[in-house]
Amino acid sequence: MSLDDVLAQIDRNLDTATAHLMDLLRIQSISTDPAYKADCDKAADWLVADLKSIGVEATKRPTPGHPMVVGHVGEDNSDLPHVLFYGHYDVQPVDPLELWTSPPFEPQLEETNNGTVIRGRGASDDKGQLMTFIEACRAWKLVHGSLPCRITFFFEGEEESGSPSLIPFMQANADELKADIALICDTSMVSRGVPSIASQLRGMLKDEFTVIGPRIDLHSGHYGGPGLNPLRELSRIVDSFYDRETGRVAVEGFYDGVHEVPADLLRQWENSGFDAQDYLSNAGYTQAHGEKAYSILEQQWSRPTLEVNGLWGGYNGAGSKTVIPSEAHCKITCRLVGDMDPDALRGKIRAHVAAQLSPDCKVVWDQDLEGSPASVMNIARPEFEAARGALSDEWNREAVFCGMGGSIPIAGFFKSVLGMDAMLVGFANDDDAIHSPNEKYDLKSFHKGIRSWARILDALTK
Amino acid sequence: MSLDDVLAQIDRNLDTATAHLMDLLRIQSISTDPAYKADCDKAADWLVADLKSIGVEATKRPTPGHPMVVGHVGEDNSDLPHVLFYGHYDVQPVDPLELWTSPPFEPQLEETNNGTVIRGRGASDDKGQLMTFIEACRAWKLVHGSLPCRITFFFEGEEESGSPSLIPFMQANADELKADIALICDTSMVSRGVPSIASQLRGMLKDEFTVIGPRIDLHSGHYGGPGLNPLRELSRIVDSFYDRETGRVAVEGFYDGVHEVPADLLRQWENSGFDAQDYLSNAGYTQAHGEKAYSILEQQWSRPTLEVNGLWGGYNGAGSKTVIPSEAHCKITCRLVGDMDPDALRGKIRAHVAAQLSPDCKVVWDQDLEGSPASVMNIARPEFEAARGALSDEWNREAVFCGMGGSIPIAGFFKSVLGMDAMLVGFANDDDAIHSPNEKYDLKSFHKGIRSWARILDALTK
Repeated sequence: MSLDDVLAQIDRNLDTATAHLMDLLRIQSISTDPAYKADCDKAADWLVADLKSIGVEATKRPTPGHPMVVGHVGEDNSDLPHVLFYGHYDVQPVDPLELWTSPPFEPQLEETNNGTVIRGRGASDDKGQLMTFIEACRAWKLVHGSLPCRITFFFEGEEESGSPSLIPFMQANADELKADIALICDTSMVSRGVPSIASQLRGMLKDEFTVIGPRIDLHSGHYGGPGLNPLRELSRIVDSFYDRETGRVAVEGFYDGVHEVPADLLRQWENSGFDAQDYLSNAGYTQAHGEKAYSILEQQWSRPTLEVNGLWGGYNGAGSKTVIPSEAHCKITCRLVGDMDPDALRGKIRAHVAAQLSPDCKVVWDQDLEGSPASVMNIARPEFEAARGALSDEWNREAVFCGMGGSIPIAGFFKSVLGMDAMLVGFANDDDAIHSPNEKYDLKSFHKGIRSWARILDALTK
Repeated sequence: MSLDDVLAQIDRNLDTATAHLMDLLRIQSISTDPAYKADCDKAADWLVADLKSIGVEATKRPTPGHPMVVGHVGEDNSDLPHVLFYGHYDVQPVDPLELWTSPPFEPQLEETNNGTVIRGRGASDDKGQLMTFIEACRAWKLVHGSLPCRITFFFEGEEESGSPSLIPFMQANADELKADIALICDTSMVSRGVPSIASQLRGMLKDEFTVIGPRIDLHSGHYGGPGLNPLRELSRIVDSFYDRETGRVAVEGFYDGVHEVPADLLRQWENSGFDAQDYLSNAGYTQAHGEKAYSILEQQWSRPTLEVNGLWGGYNGAGSKTVIPSEAHCKITCRLVGDMDPDALRGKIRAHVAAQLSPDCKVVWDQDLEGSPASVMNIARPEFEAARGALSDEWNREAVFCGMGGSIPIAGFFKSVLGMDAMLVGFANDDDAIHSPNEKYDLKSFHKGIRSWARILDALTK
């Protein structure tokens, strides 16, 4: 029995696997909305049953929120790795519902210019992706009678709602969850058909502040002129965050801990098939607007940002109101890279804002805050080269190490809580509309994703 | 029979006049809320009846909104002026109701540190003020058997909801409404006990724009860096409106048509008893924040402003959302002075904004716009000196010509529609809480206001 037999079994079973995925997609496991609590539970039960069907000892594990699913199969063997596979069974809300061309929880196959797609909420993020791994295991088991190594399965149901139970659960079950390496299938390919391993993820810092001017809303006739307007103050503060000439963030010390990308990795990125034109035009841009000294890929993957995500104050209804408001509000997030320290950075940003304030004006910071540093994968580990070879074989295209502009805190948590490295391999495409109406997963991603995991398991256990 | 007899009659009748005003205050004539349409009608009927009781031929006149009240008394006499008196019988909404210490439409007398006040919605704005004139006429009529000159009464019921019927009504009834001068009682005194004639009012320009960046909301992980954020653009645009060093508006040509206040008028303002410390501390300020080259009174009365009244975009709910929004919104109003032309200014502001825009970014302007130039009263008319003398006699304090930071378009409409000058004399105080909970009118304002109008009528007809 060989890898080819497993791959052939995967090919034969594709229709069944697709129909099986659709069963999971029909479960409305929206984690952020308490109305769907029973559906989340049902998705966890579905996964437990499915893991059991391939010989995994799986259980649903309660948390203060939605349950975890943990499964174990195989014995320790010093010649073989013990891998943990992570995914999430919860999905994003579906609104605006009217923009969907078919009901979000009635998945269907659809022909498009880019081939057949599986349309439905969660098809790509993350049910379709997590099933690529389970289906690879199913085929392996059928062909070989057992799985190739010890595998721990770990699925959560709160990824789309901030994962509040994740770290406590990992801490409480550290011994049970510990493995040699975590495999995560929740990322996308750098461009269509280019197999990609995420080598670094940006971290995240969130903060929110209110600029307070007059003690009450004022009439702009009576106080217009002498009055201090916090909307004007806030605008000046936000503008002061940036150096428009260079595109850099102008907060002192902002770039502490930021490193240049090694030349060889940068070369890989540049040869990754990333289509800058496509990326820009998808957003309606004709050019990149970040740091002028860096390429688009660096701006997206290896450079930090300070982004204003929300800004509001005064009157926003119909018509006008001649008010000088008392308050103005601002939500910001930073994407962190390298060794940027979230807590230190928060202090620098707050000091910057304080230095901008006019007399008779103060700022209040939100107290409920989050921050997580960037994650850089340990691509020197042999598993990364093994996976790269396997992916290259499957996709007939050299697999690339790419960066990721987003933040997937789970990778960092495996390191910080369990001391494990993680490897992120995913088969999503940028046009999958995750978190948006009409989410889809290319059938090719699903099919070749399953085959890719079979090849990776094979490569890891040779 | 002399003015003294009229004043004595006013003093004798004060309790009755106060009770009579309270009858009017009980009518819930909130013009902006259709639920109170019948109440507005009732207030108009009340005024018609009251005018008839002093010999005025008064009628309620329908409009597409709330009715006007028009009354006529007396004949033309080439030796005597024909005056028009304007006021409004509608009031502001009362919410937040829970902040009222007594029911807004159950007026009552209350003792305060500043003497007795009439508490209730509309006590100051404008029912109490308009009744000062009617009560002066009532006393005059009782003492003299007739009023001192031809008088046209003109009351509207839509002043607090934008006066949509006012200009059409004035145009349709121009011949009937035309008089030598309009008297308006809807303003406040520059400080407690200082009789004040408003010599200039600022005009108003309203505009609203949307900055559009990417064609859809973007994920700040995927596009943070290369992405253009319209919130950042808007902040830069707003900041560019101002020169922080001088406190001036930095829009090119903004100050075209702005004139310095004549030295003698400025001296009057400065001797008007305006309490800058009080004015600032009421807002929680320790200093003025406008144009550094001008006094607080000039900043408030004779200098133009560009104020941001509302600003919003992106996410403003609980927690955070890692979005680069597609749009950012801004509402602005300008206060205009001198000969500033609203239409020309609008063009300058729009050109300024256009010049700030980054590539891949556009701005869309609201199409539903308003503008009205500043009003400068014709204080060279003899009626102004007559009124000043009368007010000085009544208040034992030289009456002052003051500016007003707000905009009262009616004064301009008398000029533009009917070719009449207007004189604004009012007895409100800054702490009257008009438009706010616990509105009040000082009993002293009411009493001495009635006496003031009697003196003014006497002075105008001597």
